[in-house]
Amino acid sequence: MKLSDYLPILQWGRQYNGQTFANDMIAAVIVTVMLIPQSLAYALLAGLPPQVGLYASVLPLVVYAIFGTSRTMAVGPVAILSLMTAVAAGKVAQQGTPEYLTAAIVLAVISGLMLVVMGIFRLGFLANFLSHPVMSGFVTATGILIAVSQLKYLLGIPVSGRGMIDTLTSIFRHLGEINWPTAAIGGPAVAFLFWSRKGLKPLLLGLGLKDSLASMLARSGPVLAVVLGGVAVVAFGLEAKGVRVVGEIPKGLPGLSLPHFDAGLWQALLGSSALIAMISFIESVSMAQTLAAKRRQRIDPDQELIALGAASLAAGVSGGYPVTGGFARSAVNFDAGAETPAAGAFTAVGIALAALFLTPLLYNLPQAVLAATVVVAVLGLVDIKALRGTWNYSKRDFAAMAATILVTLVAGVELGVTTGVVLSLLLHLYQTSRPHFAIVGQVPGTHHFRNVNRHAVVVPEHIVTIRIDESLYFANARFLQDMVYNVLSNRPDLKHIILMCPAVNHIDASGLESLEAINARLKDAGVTLHLSEVKGPVMDRLKRTHFLDELTGNVYLDQFDAIADLDFECAKSAIEKTGRLTEPGSDPCPSQEIAGVREMGG
Amino acid sequence: MKLSDYLPILQWGRQYNGQTFANDMIAAVIVTVMLIPQSLAYALLAGLPPQVGLYASVLPLVVYAIFGTSRTMAVGPVAILSLMTAVAAGKVAQQGTPEYLTAAIVLAVISGLMLVVMGIFRLGFLANFLSHPVMSGFVTATGILIAVSQLKYLLGIPVSGRGMIDTLTSIFRHLGEINWPTAAIGGPAVAFLFWSRKGLKPLLLGLGLKDSLASMLARSGPVLAVVLGGVAVVAFGLEAKGVRVVGEIPKGLPGLSLPHFDAGLWQALLGSSALIAMISFIESVSMAQTLAAKRRQRIDPDQELIALGAASLAAGVSGGYPVTGGFARSAVNFDAGAETPAAGAFTAVGIALAALFLTPLLYNLPQAVLAATVVVAVLGLVDIKALRGTWNYSKRDFAAMAATILVTLVAGVELGVTTGVVLSLLLHLYQTSRPHFAIVGQVPGTHHFRNVNRHAVVVPEHIVTIRIDESLYFANARFLQDMVYNVLSNRPDLKHIILMCPAVNHIDASGLESLEAINARLKDAGVTLHLSEVKGPVMDRLKRTHFLDELTGNVYLDQFDAIADLDFECAKSAIEKTGRLTEPGSDPCPSQEIAGVREMGG
Repeated sequence: MKLSDYLPILQWGRQYNGQTFANDMIAAVIVTVMLIPQSLAYALLAGLPPQVGLYASVLPLVVYAIFGTSRTMAVGPVAILSLMTAVAAGKVAQQGTPEYLTAAIVLAVISGLMLVVMGIFRLGFLANFLSHPVMSGFVTATGILIAVSQLKYLLGIPVSGRGMIDTLTSIFRHLGEINWPTAAIGGPAVAFLFWSRKGLKPLLLGLGLKDSLASMLARSGPVLAVVLGGVAVVAFGLEAKGVRVVGEIPKGLPGLSLPHFDAGLWQALLGSSALIAMISFIESVSMAQTLAAKRRQRIDPDQELIALGAASLAAGVSGGYPVTGGFARSAVNFDAGAETPAAGAFTAVGIALAALFLTPLLYNLPQAVLAATVVVAVLGLVDIKALRGTWNYSKRDFAAMAATILVTLVAGVELGVTTGVVLSLLLHLYQTSRPHFAIVGQVPGTHHFRNVNRHAVVVPEHIVTIRIDESLYFANARFLQDMVYNVLSNRPDLKHIILMCPAVNHIDASGLESLEAINARLKDAGVTLHLSEVKGPVMDRLKRTHFLDELTGNVYLDQFDAIADLDFECAKSAIEKTGRLTEPGSDPCPSQEIAGVREMGG
Repeated sequence: MKLSDYLPILQWGRQYNGQTFANDMIAAVIVTVMLIPQSLAYALLAGLPPQVGLYASVLPLVVYAIFGTSRTMAVGPVAILSLMTAVAAGKVAQQGTPEYLTAAIVLAVISGLMLVVMGIFRLGFLANFLSHPVMSGFVTATGILIAVSQLKYLLGIPVSGRGMIDTLTSIFRHLGEINWPTAAIGGPAVAFLFWSRKGLKPLLLGLGLKDSLASMLARSGPVLAVVLGGVAVVAFGLEAKGVRVVGEIPKGLPGLSLPHFDAGLWQALLGSSALIAMISFIESVSMAQTLAAKRRQRIDPDQELIALGAASLAAGVSGGYPVTGGFARSAVNFDAGAETPAAGAFTAVGIALAALFLTPLLYNLPQAVLAATVVVAVLGLVDIKALRGTWNYSKRDFAAMAATILVTLVAGVELGVTTGVVLSLLLHLYQTSRPHFAIVGQVPGTHHFRNVNRHAVVVPEHIVTIRIDESLYFANARFLQDMVYNVLSNRPDLKHIILMCPAVNHIDASGLESLEAINARLKDAGVTLHLSEVKGPVMDRLKRTHFLDELTGNVYLDQFDAIADLDFECAKSAIEKTGRLTEPGSDPCPSQEIAGVREMGG
């Protein structure tokens, strides 16, 4: 590892020039305009004061620019982490209290530390516990949860529920108290934003704009909606009519400080922080890869852990809350032509300037429109179609996905994602614990060996060949024994068992133990065990053990050689026994033709 | 499933005859003699009154005879479960109190219920979580723990520690209080028992006994030691000299009754019961398989769950504690010629008779000799050599094994086995998250494709072929993307990537998602993705998705065809472009010869 692997800024910084600067600058201006209302809206979703969203969009961006390996990803507050922050902080404090804010900051610090440690020790593989169907189900369910949680802002009613069912019940109970001016701007804002996702770009193209500019402007629908909302509040004096606005935001940025260390609080937030760290990594790294591949750049996932961790830590020490790469804003950054992470640093300067000088302008932005931008953004993440696709492809993956969605909706994000992780592990273990295997025979006239149940093959009567289509490891070590002993107990005439291993990619100590046990048991029963087509690396490892010395039979490079050799041995011993070439009227080593059903595969 | 699959007694019962009865009866008598002192010793180890060991050796044996699929396994109290019972019951009550006994009974009931449920729902695969190295390490560490725990009986000193370090410290502190008469029979008992494991059989053979009889008698060393101990106590009036004896045992058997249901107690013992259930299943099923294979019989692991669960439940309702198949006693049963589980039922009758009529004879058995039988039995399970073997074979398996031993010794059995399970899962995930893969090229003049780093091969310049030696599933889905994008970012001239899949046994939804993402990313980058040598079942599944429609390239049955086809396409397009067969002085589709290091494997 070179220093520049840990500080990617040293790589791209060297080639930095005027043109790159100009491109990064343009992208930064556009992302800044988009990020200001987003930061406010996500802070609202997290149950935090609006300025916390701005704080989380300054220092983290600078830090990511130094450590990040993605050239174009834009970090900051995102919807899912905002909801997870609200859930976790809500467990230890009441929204609106200083303790709640402290909890949010502590979440950023702990999850940041965890990510950095995972990066240093290259533990990124831990994120693999979250399979794609679980993550996809989790994002869908979270999207629905968030959309529901924003209804109170869209309708201007007080809602106190924490779970989804609570919240919906509470909304129905308060339906009579809808603030109609709020609903009158919230409803149209949602409608406009949904339309703008599909309808705005063709309109702009129709107006003669270039394709790239049109795409970019089409993504700025939320900014337009928020500005129009703010204008409407001022023009019609809506605040007096009960429309809630962002309100007073303290000018400037807070100083750097670590939250007071409280062992009890840290312990209470440990599990939540781990989930936040995991989700933030998975969400951003896949997006970073998508963007990087388009320009044939590359992402180093372990360095990304360090960069995202450092960014979250930066959020924690500067009064923000957990951050990660945001999808919409990274896409805008990419489309706007950002070339290096410097664009992110410039964005940070833009947000800092906004926090210093623009807060009076933000005063009148209506919460209902901010909520509308959140609702439309998260409903874009809801992917119900994926459920059907997964159902068609794999019932097990579907089960993990459906369980994640259900538990997340009913019992909340933390239990939801935990259920998904545990379930996918169990299902994986279940699947590999009963691996595919086939008793194979020789396709007449060829050197090929195929499943006796699928093909017309020839099988010597005293030999059974079992092809195992899986690595041998602890999950299936017992199955292997069961399976061989079953074959053994059904075949009193058996003299040889050949395990054919072309698909065995590795054998762990449990697998080895099973092979040793099988070898010993078969020896007791007077049956010889052979292996065939063992892969090079697997064989290298077996050579380090006593297994090959103890093996009653041979290891054959080729299954055809195995059968030929064993047939020859059988004939030889028959000749030795009878003293003649063949016993008249009987074949000492008979084979059996099996007319299997000819099918694909096997 | 037929009824006789659930009630194996219906299978073997039909062929039951006089000869079988005679054989079973002889084995039952021998096992009974052996089991009486064992039951008392293990009850002592579990911290329970001695008669509880007898109670656990009656009804469970009858129940196992009805439901069990092993013809020769003998169930009853065993060392490891006794220690685990002591640990679990010790967490909720003080040894010697009625609450402690209740806790032991509840453990039998809950773990029995769990096993039955696992059996009915065929969840035996859950036991696979315990890999062989973890189980082996656990047995070794438990053996040491048990041996240490018995020192107090061997030396006749009061010891109060619960952990191993506690216990050892306490022993050293009380060394001055050794009861010498106790040590004088405990020490020689241990020495005799160790000697008898190796030395008794040759001696008996020397006396002219038949091999099978000699082996069997050699295993009855513990019985001999206990009887001699009892004689010594009576002859020398040792009880008066402070040698602790088994003492008064209430005559008869307790009635059947369920323990009073206490939700709090059940909840407190849930985790411990799950561990006991798991360990009892793993311990006995592998032994049952070993015995069955010798006679070409078979074991049904799911039915074994039901049988062991029913046996434990039976222990619970008849005043016993958790039971499972015992190694030494099953071996004796087997060697003594037991043919059916009826031998177990006859043993139960023997133990019941002992509990009814022999308790006065048991009064004088010295605890020190019982402890000696336990120590020698469990030290026989300690397998330190396995550590070295595992170290040689696999560092990862060694890590899991060593951690299990250390944590078990230092922090106790429950944390030890949990650590082992979690660690092996993590290590497995880590290993498969970075699967072996190779960039391959064609061995000149053959249809074989080999690792470019190991062999001299030819590689077309615009094509990269990557052979993946692992199934594609959630643990390595991200790695696959990283790896392909890395190749992509290093090769600006690249036009085709072929994923060669002969070792891909399955692709789950996460793997499919990765392939889809790779296909889309490569398309953006102007590179075509192909697959080759996809297995039949994997292909069947892919056909159910849109992936094959979206795939930019082709699926080739054979890697050789893939290269030939892509080379042909390249040449064709070059001709179309230039209008001539070959551009003078340049090959439009050049290949590169790579002189790899020729090695085994790859």
